[in-house]
Amino acid sequence: MSLDAAESKPHQRLSAHLAPELAAVNELIRARMASKHAPRIPEVTAHLIEAGGKRLRPMLTLAAARLCGYQGPYHVHLAATVEFIHTATLLHDDVVDESGQRRGRPTANLLWDNKSSVLVGDYLFARAFQLMVEPGNLRVLEILSNAAATIAEGEVLQLTAAQNLSTDEDIYLQVVRGKTAALFSAATEAGAVIADADTAHVQALFTYGDALGISFQIVDDLLDYWGSDATGKNIGDDFRERKLTLPVIKAVAKADEEERAFWSRTIEKGKQQDGDLETALALLAKHNALEDTRTEAIAWADKAKAALSVLPDDPIRTMLHDIADYVVARVN
Amino acid sequence: MSLDAAESKPHQRLSAHLAPELAAVNELIRARMASKHAPRIPEVTAHLIEAGGKRLRPMLTLAAARLCGYQGPYHVHLAATVEFIHTATLLHDDVVDESGQRRGRPTANLLWDNKSSVLVGDYLFARAFQLMVEPGNLRVLEILSNAAATIAEGEVLQLTAAQNLSTDEDIYLQVVRGKTAALFSAATEAGAVIADADTAHVQALFTYGDALGISFQIVDDLLDYWGSDATGKNIGDDFRERKLTLPVIKAVAKADEEERAFWSRTIEKGKQQDGDLETALALLAKHNALEDTRTEAIAWADKAKAALSVLPDDPIRTMLHDIADYVVARVN
Repeated sequence: MSLDAAESKPHQRLSAHLAPELAAVNELIRARMASKHAPRIPEVTAHLIEAGGKRLRPMLTLAAARLCGYQGPYHVHLAATVEFIHTATLLHDDVVDESGQRRGRPTANLLWDNKSSVLVGDYLFARAFQLMVEPGNLRVLEILSNAAATIAEGEVLQLTAAQNLSTDEDIYLQVVRGKTAALFSAATEAGAVIADADTAHVQALFTYGDALGISFQIVDDLLDYWGSDATGKNIGDDFRERKLTLPVIKAVAKADEEERAFWSRTIEKGKQQDGDLETALALLAKHNALEDTRTEAIAWADKAKAALSVLPDDPIRTMLHDIADYVVARVN
Repeated sequence: MSLDAAESKPHQRLSAHLAPELAAVNELIRARMASKHAPRIPEVTAHLIEAGGKRLRPMLTLAAARLCGYQGPYHVHLAATVEFIHTATLLHDDVVDESGQRRGRPTANLLWDNKSSVLVGDYLFARAFQLMVEPGNLRVLEILSNAAATIAEGEVLQLTAAQNLSTDEDIYLQVVRGKTAALFSAATEAGAVIADADTAHVQALFTYGDALGISFQIVDDLLDYWGSDATGKNIGDDFRERKLTLPVIKAVAKADEEERAFWSRTIEKGKQQDGDLETALALLAKHNALEDTRTEAIAWADKAKAALSVLPDDPIRTMLHDIADYVVARVN
């Protein structure tokens, strides 16, 4: 391994390792996001798809398939499917959250309008389903259509759970499985299944994707109170948007009566005033909520790494292992 | 045929003829619109699905399959799929159109919020894809996933075409194929394909669904200027919402300079004032636009009926024939 490679981030090493296939995925995405009749579609989609996401989810599909010895062409279709589902979800999320920024750029709902984001998202969902049909593998279709339902269910659950102080860690986990981990685990499982891997390998890659996705989302929620990183989020965005995430759930569980009244006013009733974010951060520190959340993220990353042990020893396996470490290394 | 049956409407006769299978479709819809985790989902869905739509689209799937001699259970899954896609589309349409009423009742986006309509619509799309995978028929999956893409594309095209006076009859037809006919033709074609019908019968049922859907939408657009019927629309809703539909497209094509300025002000610029609807109706009458639109709807209904001729002589065929007549009989 060259010094450059050793210093690069693990998802960049995986991206380099899978470069020809990732190029094929990008080519397929560009071809399929086109529309003969409605030029608005590629405009909106290009804004988001070409905005330089890390393509982590499609890479997981390619990596899982290759790790299981797949030689055929269809992991590329499944990887593009996964990216389309992800992009459609982002378009609809930004409408639901009334967001104005994503990855440091104005969102599609701001540049065009909510209507375009809703309908172009629908188009990408439909294109995703067309793509996933092409390999002609019914098990893969089950996995990906189940994931799509779990994602939507998680998003609806989040609508009702986010501002409710009775939301506990179990419900939080359901939401996180829906909004993030379901697509990660479907991405890795579908890659294994298209490679016709044996049950133990399919199960291992499912577990890796599930645990990695959960770790990823917990870290994302933690960073919102921990300090800004490359995500482009500011400290306290979730607090201001009254989203009950794991750090606050942990602090609420240990809250005395006065503290509970504070969380009820700021999160449930949304009556926030100057100094509230500072109070929230002090309560999180008092109850060790950030450190406990970080411990949980690390435990999920450990679970992801452990799942890999049954898989063949291969550079890809090492990179997947390192990606799990890297996800939690964002909070140091 | 009893006197009662002779007097009932053709879709009611078809509904009676298919009663046991339609009951199975309703049962499947109820089971699959449930959500273990997110009770908001069945609330929103029940509001719309149980609001007494005619279930025309799922009936077309059942009818096509039976007409082609299908004996298996899976036309029920496909019929429920078609209804879920339709319902998801309605939820998203009402957000996009900012509608407050559908079928004389408040819309879901009004009763809950836009967020719920977007996300529950996504859930129903995903449930539709799960359902359509279950029969294990790849051709059916292609037909239905292609239809979903055509629907979304038509909706996006409508966004940009609706308020643009250069929208001509060709573009209108593309929009109508997308927003309405694609699901009708997929409903009938999928029914024929699951029955393993021969190519001529599949093609005939596709053509019937396509032409029936186009006729249905043209009549819907015509009724908006013709007079109210059971649709719950008021005269001029499309005009007030600045939707360029076939009657206006026909009047614009024959407009002199002054008339063009009127359409440009009211539809393109949206600067409407008292008396504008009356002027619009007078211009439609002057250019015979309503009568010409009606003639076109009848021609599509005739095309739908003609397509049926290659299919087996059967009471279902007669009912499909009568449904095409009934669609245009709404404008008399």
